Amino acid sequence: MKLLFIVMDGLGDRPIPDLGGKTPLEYANTPNLDKIASLGMNGLLHVIAPGVTPGSDTAHLALFGVDPYEYYTGRGPFEAAGVGLEVKEGDIAFRANFATISDNGVITDRRAGRIKTGTEELSKLLEGIEIDGIKFLLKAGTEHRAALVLRGEGLTDKVYGNDPKVEGKEPPIFKPLDESSEAQKTARVLTTYVMKVRDILSKAEINDKRVQEGLFAANFLLIRGAGKVPKVPNFEEEYCLESACVAGGGLYKGIARMLGMDIIEDERLTGGTDTNLEAKFEVTLENLKNYDFVFAHVKGTDNFSHDGDYMAKAHFIEKVDKELYRFLPVNFDQELVIMITGDHSSPCSFKDHSADPVPIVIYSSDCRRDEVDKFGESYAVKGSLGHVVGKHIMGIALNEMRLVHKFGS
Amino acid sequence: MKLLFIVMDGLGDRPIPDLGGKTPLEYANTPNLDKIASLGMNGLLHVIAPGVTPGSDTAHLALFGVDPYEYYTGRGPFEAAGVGLEVKEGDIAFRANFATISDNGVITDRRAGRIKTGTEELSKLLEGIEIDGIKFLLKAGTEHRAALVLRGEGLTDKVYGNDPKVEGKEPPIFKPLDESSEAQKTARVLTTYVMKVRDILSKAEINDKRVQEGLFAANFLLIRGAGKVPKVPNFEEEYCLESACVAGGGLYKGIARMLGMDIIEDERLTGGTDTNLEAKFEVTLENLKNYDFVFAHVKGTDNFSHDGDYMAKAHFIEKVDKELYRFLPVNFDQELVIMITGDHSSPCSFKDHSADPVPIVIYSSDCRRDEVDKFGESYAVKGSLGHVVGKHIMGIALNEMRLVHKFGS
Repeated sequence: MKLLFIVMDGLGDRPIPDLGGKTPLEYANTPNLDKIASLGMNGLLHVIAPGVTPGSDTAHLALFGVDPYEYYTGRGPFEAAGVGLEVKEGDIAFRANFATISDNGVITDRRAGRIKTGTEELSKLLEGIEIDGIKFLLKAGTEHRAALVLRGEGLTDKVYGNDPKVEGKEPPIFKPLDESSEAQKTARVLTTYVMKVRDILSKAEINDKRVQEGLFAANFLLIRGAGKVPKVPNFEEEYCLESACVAGGGLYKGIARMLGMDIIEDERLTGGTDTNLEAKFEVTLENLKNYDFVFAHVKGTDNFSHDGDYMAKAHFIEKVDKELYRFLPVNFDQELVIMITGDHSSPCSFKDHSADPVPIVIYSSDCRRDEVDKFGESYAVKGSLGHVVGKHIMGIALNEMRLVHKFGS
Repeated sequence: MKLLFIVMDGLGDRPIPDLGGKTPLEYANTPNLDKIASLGMNGLLHVIAPGVTPGSDTAHLALFGVDPYEYYTGRGPFEAAGVGLEVKEGDIAFRANFATISDNGVITDRRAGRIKTGTEELSKLLEGIEIDGIKFLLKAGTEHRAALVLRGEGLTDKVYGNDPKVEGKEPPIFKPLDESSEAQKTARVLTTYVMKVRDILSKAEINDKRVQEGLFAANFLLIRGAGKVPKVPNFEEEYCLESACVAGGGLYKGIARMLGMDIIEDERLTGGTDTNLEAKFEVTLENLKNYDFVFAHVKGTDNFSHDGDYMAKAHFIEKVDKELYRFLPVNFDQELVIMITGDHSSPCSFKDHSADPVPIVIYSSDCRRDEVDKFGESYAVKGSLGHVVGKHIMGIALNEMRLVHKFGS
């Protein structure tokens, strides 16, 4: 038996007067989601706890059964894993920006003019840097983004970064956040590192070319979001499931990678609103052949929520729905358990995450169906799952897979 | 955006055959509560946890998001804060009664004939008493009631009081509850204190007059309910809300004061069944202008429950309902979030608190309304809040206020 777990980012919403008091999900025409709802068990999911507004990072940990209060140390480690850096327990990970610094040491652009290409080559120039026995591993992400990992003895994440947050200022020095020798050392090696970085990048050909073209040179690194890489539980071992992640966004791939899932790389999978949904679910279907568990993440719902564009959110949900026919019992020739939900609500009226619960449906061929026959926030109130919290859903899904781990005898 | 939190003490009840199988709340004619229910999200509240019967003190801590298992040390500290004593962390606080002791040392009336006036003057005679470096702060409450605070080094709340519980007996000596030197010291200074108290009060003019009038002299103090004043979280800081309490009963004011809320004093606000409800909700309305959060407490519902008088309870609920028109969206000209519930159930058939959940409604202008259109125990079953616990409701209400504190990023 297989488990398909589809997460639509920021799926949950609130009643919108222009949509006749319906949420975007309720307003959208979603015959496939409704079919799954009518065959499955429905409920409302509090991803972390009732009244708690999740971040995307803490939410996904909770969805996979990992307690964010215990394991979340900051976004750096997950972003680093997401760009493909092999992070190890104890590494100190940061988010980084390629930025532009002037000759007199002032940050003139925090994103190097939102540089589109060339950061991978620039990262290569910075390979192999080692200071006081500490290895510096940098990897470029999309546009100006990058992740930095420090590996070695005597480090800590109790250090504040060098991002002035505004342009026209000098970058602040790395500040130790406590009195420990680890914090002193981490701040010191980072200071030396960015001096070296500036020196190397300012001599890079790519930057000469950018300056000639009137573009901002990517001649500096702004570093923030320190987090010590935690030892998270291994998802595959925990649940005895060969697991794969089909996602575009770096954060989601990063969390999945840290939990031990295989990351399915396909350039058609982007984390945006223009992602190729047909490809995403085709890849998902393909991988259900070889894996017991496939996590498919769709980001667009959240992007439209942050814009407050409820009509576009509804239409995007319809596009997702259209691709789900593949997994309906009539079309899928194996026993499949399906779990569909969001990682949090993002009401278009908030333009941000909220603590409202998200509808969830869990389907298996002999589950305890309820009277709910549409997928939506208000319909889910009558579902047989009731109100559930994130940490319990993997257990409920495993039960549908008949992968029962009896507690006691 | 403002938050109005109305607590009707002991609101929840059980079906009563004489009321056609309805609860007093369901039986009562409550158009305003029903309107709020129909516009809001309904559910059933387990104030502490399912199956746990709350006291009034622990219940209110839980309603304000303070874990009573961590912070509740006994009723004394909250009663002391309620009568207006400035309690400090580490103080040992007690509830006290003015009582009558005969010349041969027997308690003849545990409440000094339910003395109505004069206890404030008597308390003044006891000001400034200090024994072995311990300060004794006494403050009179309503009728025979008072609160006592011991302040100084080497004290503990592990001491049993001097209340014989019945009349016609000598007061027992203060008993240390463990072998510690603190318990010995606390019992010793209390013993010395009540001897002094008896000496001073027996010479008081007020008591001479009372005896001449054939009344019981208030010439002794019975002391019970020891509790060490805990360091509770500051509600205003925790939630970033300027907060006010509109209540009559000392306990509720005491809890609110300890949590850092402003106490609105108005002599029309009593904690009884004859309280001026019009004044209470007029004062509440006034204070919603200057505060982000107003807690309005109504005690009468619980009083009638303890008498088992379900018809009076229903009528009292109707009187409360009549005053709530002020807060309906059509009459209130600001964005208002309304949360209405009880601190526990007090079924008239129990004549005491019970663990039955209490109906709760949370309203905001764009909340996820449900199909519930009446406020009541059995109606709330179908609500979109489902079953909630006390520690989560402030988070849910803050979410309605869009005061979102994201956990993670």
